[in-house]
Amino acid sequence: MRDELKLENIRSALIRLEETIIFSLIERAQFGKNPIIYKNGGISVKEFDGSFMMFLLCGTEKLHALVRRYTAPDEHPFTKDLPEPILSSAGNDCPIRKNNININEKILYAYIENIIPVICDKEDDGNYGSSAVNDINALQAISKRVHYGKYVAEAKFLAGEREYSLLIKNRDEKAIMKKLTDSAVEEKLLERVQLKAATYGQEPNVKNSLHKIPPDVIKKIYAEYIIPFTKEVELLYLLERLK
Amino acid sequence: MRDELKLENIRSALIRLEETIIFSLIERAQFGKNPIIYKNGGISVKEFDGSFMMFLLCGTEKLHALVRRYTAPDEHPFTKDLPEPILSSAGNDCPIRKNNININEKILYAYIENIIPVICDKEDDGNYGSSAVNDINALQAISKRVHYGKYVAEAKFLAGEREYSLLIKNRDEKAIMKKLTDSAVEEKLLERVQLKAATYGQEPNVKNSLHKIPPDVIKKIYAEYIIPFTKEVELLYLLERLK
Repeated sequence: MRDELKLENIRSALIRLEETIIFSLIERAQFGKNPIIYKNGGISVKEFDGSFMMFLLCGTEKLHALVRRYTAPDEHPFTKDLPEPILSSAGNDCPIRKNNININEKILYAYIENIIPVICDKEDDGNYGSSAVNDINALQAISKRVHYGKYVAEAKFLAGEREYSLLIKNRDEKAIMKKLTDSAVEEKLLERVQLKAATYGQEPNVKNSLHKIPPDVIKKIYAEYIIPFTKEVELLYLLERLK
Repeated sequence: MRDELKLENIRSALIRLEETIIFSLIERAQFGKNPIIYKNGGISVKEFDGSFMMFLLCGTEKLHALVRRYTAPDEHPFTKDLPEPILSSAGNDCPIRKNNININEKILYAYIENIIPVICDKEDDGNYGSSAVNDINALQAISKRVHYGKYVAEAKFLAGEREYSLLIKNRDEKAIMKKLTDSAVEEKLLERVQLKAATYGQEPNVKNSLHKIPPDVIKKIYAEYIIPFTKEVELLYLLERLK
């Protein structure tokens, strides 16, 4: 089996991404919610039809597309009409099946509507640029984690090919989801995430400092969005797996 | 006195920037040194004369310039020939004197030559894009902290205008630097940074986990680069203060 598909490697990639996600949420949370940056025309950007944050996300993805970010199987853009890469391909073959699964639209919606309101205290503090730049970091980190579900699904499929194939042929989504779910592992993950959030969100030099984001809020973001989204990607991937 | 120049506000901005800098270094350190991304032509980018990292830094700064990042007095670009903003100005007046002080060239050099080699373990791990994107976050955070020296200098000047004016008129750089330096405060800062690095760099769920970057390495980066660079900005700012 290829290294990228070994469960211990996938597991350690997902665990390391927890730091990236928690750091990026803590960074974003120092600024206000600044809802104006998410509203179409809230801050008017010349010749761009969309919000201020989307303008920066779009420009950032165009730049990163030039250097081949989105040809990597674990990277997924939020925007469309990206330019062709100007770097030649490294030509690595891909450890998972070719697919077009991308649930970033859903991630973006949940991020703006459900995550920003619970991690930021202040309403509008005028830090629009900093907020949007930090949004991009957080969105990219969450997207990477969620779409890593493809690797998880491929590894699980290879470990239980016969059973999964049967369920996939029967389009039995409920049974696939049940087979994908390990509640004990999820519970352990949520505890670890809460502990990390408590550790990284504290001021270690200040006694009884308030956490920059309450640890249970980050746990809830994992429980309600990041884990379910990852499993959704796993399911979508498996449903296409026999094609 | 304006809020931005109150010493307790400057102090808390600098303390909060410690998290941003430490998080960004920890994030960068998960990848290899990847020296190829810093070498001109190391990875050849079509129609760009420079390194791969500079291509991404340049593109990022062009995008951020469009939304007025670099008209803010606490933001300084690493690259030149940036486009004019397409957002209208918020028209905030600036709490410090107009100046063109920018030591980012020095920061960039120290970052590539001295900081990357001590925070990254692996040599070349192929994660060029991720490394460069994380470089940009780290560079911007360090640059912001260092150029905050202008606010520090303005506040200190206002608190001791007569004495500073005399030293500035005499171009007595040594005496200015001495007056700017508070060794006890610096020692406290270094201890705090080391404690933060230890806290944020650990795996809280793993007993005796290795730190992602040894805390004394981050302390040394502050002692040898970030603090001296900030004081250099303070000095440069004061030397221009009476113009």
